[in-house]
Amino acid sequence: MNTTGFHVAVLGATGAVGQQMIATLEKRDFPIRKLTLLSSARSAGSIVNFKGKEIIVEEATPDSFEGVNIALFSAGGSISKKFAPEAVKRGAIVVDNTSAFRMDQDVPLVVPEVNEADLHQHKGIIANPNCSTIQMVVALEPIRKQFGLNKVLVSTYQAVSGAGKDAIDELYEQSRNILNGEKVDPQVLPVKGEKKHHQIAFNAIPQIDSFMENGFTFEEMKMINETKKILHMPSLKVAATCVRLPIETGHSESVYIEVNESGVDTKDIQLLMKDSPGVVLEDFPEQQVYPLPANAVGKNEVFVGRIRRDLDEEKGFHLWIVSDNLLKGAAFNSVQIAESLVKLGLV
Amino acid sequence: MNTTGFHVAVLGATGAVGQQMIATLEKRDFPIRKLTLLSSARSAGSIVNFKGKEIIVEEATPDSFEGVNIALFSAGGSISKKFAPEAVKRGAIVVDNTSAFRMDQDVPLVVPEVNEADLHQHKGIIANPNCSTIQMVVALEPIRKQFGLNKVLVSTYQAVSGAGKDAIDELYEQSRNILNGEKVDPQVLPVKGEKKHHQIAFNAIPQIDSFMENGFTFEEMKMINETKKILHMPSLKVAATCVRLPIETGHSESVYIEVNESGVDTKDIQLLMKDSPGVVLEDFPEQQVYPLPANAVGKNEVFVGRIRRDLDEEKGFHLWIVSDNLLKGAAFNSVQIAESLVKLGLV
Repeated sequence: MNTTGFHVAVLGATGAVGQQMIATLEKRDFPIRKLTLLSSARSAGSIVNFKGKEIIVEEATPDSFEGVNIALFSAGGSISKKFAPEAVKRGAIVVDNTSAFRMDQDVPLVVPEVNEADLHQHKGIIANPNCSTIQMVVALEPIRKQFGLNKVLVSTYQAVSGAGKDAIDELYEQSRNILNGEKVDPQVLPVKGEKKHHQIAFNAIPQIDSFMENGFTFEEMKMINETKKILHMPSLKVAATCVRLPIETGHSESVYIEVNESGVDTKDIQLLMKDSPGVVLEDFPEQQVYPLPANAVGKNEVFVGRIRRDLDEEKGFHLWIVSDNLLKGAAFNSVQIAESLVKLGLV
Repeated sequence: MNTTGFHVAVLGATGAVGQQMIATLEKRDFPIRKLTLLSSARSAGSIVNFKGKEIIVEEATPDSFEGVNIALFSAGGSISKKFAPEAVKRGAIVVDNTSAFRMDQDVPLVVPEVNEADLHQHKGIIANPNCSTIQMVVALEPIRKQFGLNKVLVSTYQAVSGAGKDAIDELYEQSRNILNGEKVDPQVLPVKGEKKHHQIAFNAIPQIDSFMENGFTFEEMKMINETKKILHMPSLKVAATCVRLPIETGHSESVYIEVNESGVDTKDIQLLMKDSPGVVLEDFPEQQVYPLPANAVGKNEVFVGRIRRDLDEEKGFHLWIVSDNLLKGAAFNSVQIAESLVKLGLV
């Protein structure tokens, strides 16, 4: 580690996203002077390797954030609510990967390719959007900028790792059970805390997070509200249906959009995607080239393909958007935010 | 078997759908005097049990249809094109489960709950629609009738059994490979005949059938064109994105619709679904009750849930529609057509 650089803390260091955060900090060679790894009492004592050195994970307390410059949080909403104010009080900037503060007016909700400048408004806490929101807005922002955007309808194909390690274990255990002709005993998905659970192996569950009174799930409302906030379009029409699938990692999205401008071609959108930051165009259907979640795993980009004009709406287009939900959807975007803070001189 | 009743033939008797056709004929106690089971030379000689008797599968020839009243076809489009005219010439009515004749003006495309009366126009061949189309129109027809229908946008979550037994075997083999840490060697999906194949286990493939010049797949265009034909709405706005998933059986669909009438409530659509033929309403999200493909397997009905009004469009609604693609999507609908032919005195 450098003697210059920043004191960085990761809260939730032993979780699926936390581990990716640590790996991403290492891969991106983020300027770190000191790395503090924090978790609940239960996981404290674990040892994590970072740039060849072993770091012991400590139980998080308010004082853990003493001297920390940047704290990456990914340990659940209630933990964020408890510790973020404590960290900010001690001078840290918190990049929070939970939904705890995302819709707070005072908290910038940032995807660096889309609204990096919003970071200037931060008051200590910056929110990392929901995984399924991030990959969608990375693709939609260039379209909004160039052609205007009027409507977004998305159906998601989401991987279990978004629900944590227990969900991954459950997927593989159930898959094994079914292949062996045994019964399955669902305990985690769709929502760990709820009373009823459904089989995820070789199945599709149209529920991610709990239901709201309007019939949408919290996950769906996150996609709807966060998209409007990040794109600075409070009256954008957005609807979402979120579905959990037997895939370990990699979220896919079937997205229908309507642009404002007339005369836009499929080719125009393809060329735009090709040149957009953080986007990789994979759109050669005649060669069976389109984004696949299994191919996106371990990559930081958002993959876009199957772009085609609607057959009825001249301003309507369909897209298939895929990304690694643990990286661009979570850990990578958080580290990118930290990088932007450094670049903008905000830390 | 009865001495009264009909001489029924099943072409493609050893395939995934053919076997379900035979099982459905038995379960529904269809009035059969004689059952002729036909296949390619390769599968001829197989023995199939029907109502406690063993029937030997024969190689199909034009003369196999001599004396047959109703022939259920499910052996691929080219086989249908070859044998359907021969069967009709010999006096049989063909219920064809392939896409060979579906869009022919002379051929009724029938889902009995929706457009049974179209059977009166038949000239020997009746087409069974695509699996993903059938389950959608069963749910949409009552809505069209009651409230009018203006627009349909669907993203599908389709099971591998729609691509036949090889695809099922491939899903389970790849799943086993991945659980054992071994490599996979895709050979079947997304389209058996094409050069390139993609992993289906723990993945999502946004291609079903080959691509057309407009960027849509044939499967997507089937959903679009067949829906218009079955609902007798040539100018209905329909778009589809079809995705293959690691699920053995049970297609799911995330469907957005716009009705014509104002003032329709979510509750109105729910009550309508509850009373519609062939539909089971499963819509108690607060109790985590919604359609799941794993629960639909082996059942003849179409399951509808997650019904909710769009947050921006007063006439817009979202639905989640699930059915067994081998039953209502294929075998059961074909046998239902045969039953309708009997009921209407058309055979």
